[in-house]
Amino acid sequence: MAPRTRLTDVAEQAGVSTATVSRVLNGKPGVAEETRRAVLAALDLLGHERPEKLRARSAGLVGLIVPELTNPVFPAFAQQVETHLADRGFTPLLCTQTPGGVTEDQYIELMVDHHVDGIIFVSGLHADSQADISRYEHLTSLDIPFVTINGTNPRLLVPAFSIDEPCSMEIAVRHLHSLGHRRIGLATGQERYIPTQGKIRGFRRAMKRYCEVDNPPIVNTLFTLEGGRAAAGILLERGCTALVCGSDLMALGAVHQARSRGLEVPTDISVIGFDDSPLFAFTDPPLTTLRQPVETICRAAVTTLLTMIEDGPVPRMEMVFVPELIVRGSTGAAHAAKETP
Amino acid sequence: MAPRTRLTDVAEQAGVSTATVSRVLNGKPGVAEETRRAVLAALDLLGHERPEKLRARSAGLVGLIVPELTNPVFPAFAQQVETHLADRGFTPLLCTQTPGGVTEDQYIELMVDHHVDGIIFVSGLHADSQADISRYEHLTSLDIPFVTINGTNPRLLVPAFSIDEPCSMEIAVRHLHSLGHRRIGLATGQERYIPTQGKIRGFRRAMKRYCEVDNPPIVNTLFTLEGGRAAAGILLERGCTALVCGSDLMALGAVHQARSRGLEVPTDISVIGFDDSPLFAFTDPPLTTLRQPVETICRAAVTTLLTMIEDGPVPRMEMVFVPELIVRGSTGAAHAAKETP
Repeated sequence: MAPRTRLTDVAEQAGVSTATVSRVLNGKPGVAEETRRAVLAALDLLGHERPEKLRARSAGLVGLIVPELTNPVFPAFAQQVETHLADRGFTPLLCTQTPGGVTEDQYIELMVDHHVDGIIFVSGLHADSQADISRYEHLTSLDIPFVTINGTNPRLLVPAFSIDEPCSMEIAVRHLHSLGHRRIGLATGQERYIPTQGKIRGFRRAMKRYCEVDNPPIVNTLFTLEGGRAAAGILLERGCTALVCGSDLMALGAVHQARSRGLEVPTDISVIGFDDSPLFAFTDPPLTTLRQPVETICRAAVTTLLTMIEDGPVPRMEMVFVPELIVRGSTGAAHAAKETP
Repeated sequence: MAPRTRLTDVAEQAGVSTATVSRVLNGKPGVAEETRRAVLAALDLLGHERPEKLRARSAGLVGLIVPELTNPVFPAFAQQVETHLADRGFTPLLCTQTPGGVTEDQYIELMVDHHVDGIIFVSGLHADSQADISRYEHLTSLDIPFVTINGTNPRLLVPAFSIDEPCSMEIAVRHLHSLGHRRIGLATGQERYIPTQGKIRGFRRAMKRYCEVDNPPIVNTLFTLEGGRAAAGILLERGCTALVCGSDLMALGAVHQARSRGLEVPTDISVIGFDDSPLFAFTDPPLTTLRQPVETICRAAVTTLLTMIEDGPVPRMEMVFVPELIVRGSTGAAHAAKETP
């Protein structure tokens, strides 16, 4: 491709003039940082190589541990953390797990060996109320700063960023209650996970408040399609007309379970997911879900970690983020006839 | 949770006896490797920590570079490479890019600095026919073995693993032809990418062979939802009744474009995607797509790279993999009335 064409393409993609693109590519001053980034992003998006002179040496290495990549919310966390680290000149070291594969402890060992400047744990063992915390104490003893995302562990004295789980359940139950549902069930992961405990607490409280139900049906399986299918089977047997699920994958499993019993979503059964990512707008039905504000969480976590790396320890803090209810097509009005207790 | 309950849970999940689980957890001999792995996978899946004694030191570090994680096929590649590396005791170092973020060259530099034993490139700059190959020659000069996945670059003398792109187009066109379609368009990425070139070549050949069409409509945009939407707009204007798309995200964009023009999929327009991942069975409509055999490709790539790491250079080789056509709900019979040229 001729240079001129490339300049025009990049300018169009970035929404700036070709003169600005040229200034950025030649490393000239007088371009706002935001504009500079837009030009680099356009260059990358169109697959062009960056000029050699724009390549800066990394400011440092930050480890990122995610549990897996099957649930699209974890790739989204990885992408957002990468973006925010790169903005500050840091390079991410992404560690992802698969069942039977490399464990969190092996990754921690790797990171220590490779002198990372800090670590971000997303839904790691810190979120398991029964897991040993000595692995994290070990990092503190080595003066390696770290922060946790989701599942704030009260035993760890580090900055923690998480979804307001009780509040998320309040939002879900309120939505379903407003649609006339009273028999609402919760399908979520295992109870020893701290996020699950928060969901259960919030769900119980919301069901008491809105539906005057004392012991609402709750089933704990796994955060997967299969887990959702299994949990929905039990909850439908118990007469639920609406299901709140602990992940979007569980919600798709619940939809599948409902349909295999001849029930329609949302005509007969309403389903709410949790996490959200762009693909869930294209599912059948498009999924109503509680969106984790992934970008906001990652920005806060990265900013805090880099402060710790650059300026030393910060006080223990917990930041909670309220999810947004994205109403799509998997929730609808309850049938009056089915609502007689 | 009491140890007894955990043993039973793990045994059930792994489909083995509690005695076998106990043997594995205590590192006793007499358990087949496959069974041992099933038990470890069950332990991980249920979120239990592995006993300290089972933690082995890593055999080495292998870098994995993927272009991004938004298209679910890339997280799938990352997961599969991780699984196969972990099976052999190696630890993956996953590097993912975002527009404007850390570049492939910066990651290569990082990997060299951290003494990786080898690198796997998935759809990297090697797949861009216009990109400089000096970055790869540099690795060869440093004796760092690497292999490439997708987009076999004829200028690189390393083992390359890729989808048989021309064959994939043959399969897609044959399927659409058998449904009565004759006006078929191809929506794919930019022409300088080697996989795109293969698709275009195969598409032209198949359209000639099955539909006796010499210059079938082809639109090159980006492999994204927006890219699919834009390309579909042009192809629909040109009277296509069926669209073959270069990625599943493009296909969803094409469905969106068709619907925004009041057309139904597959009643009025058939759409085929490319890549596949479990979520595309749940889209509306469930997507007919060409599935990349991700697991098979990753196993071959990892095995070859580890041979190079352990036994030295292997001859340049190219392995091509034929995708499977997964027929779901986005393709259907062409309307006879619309097929009059």
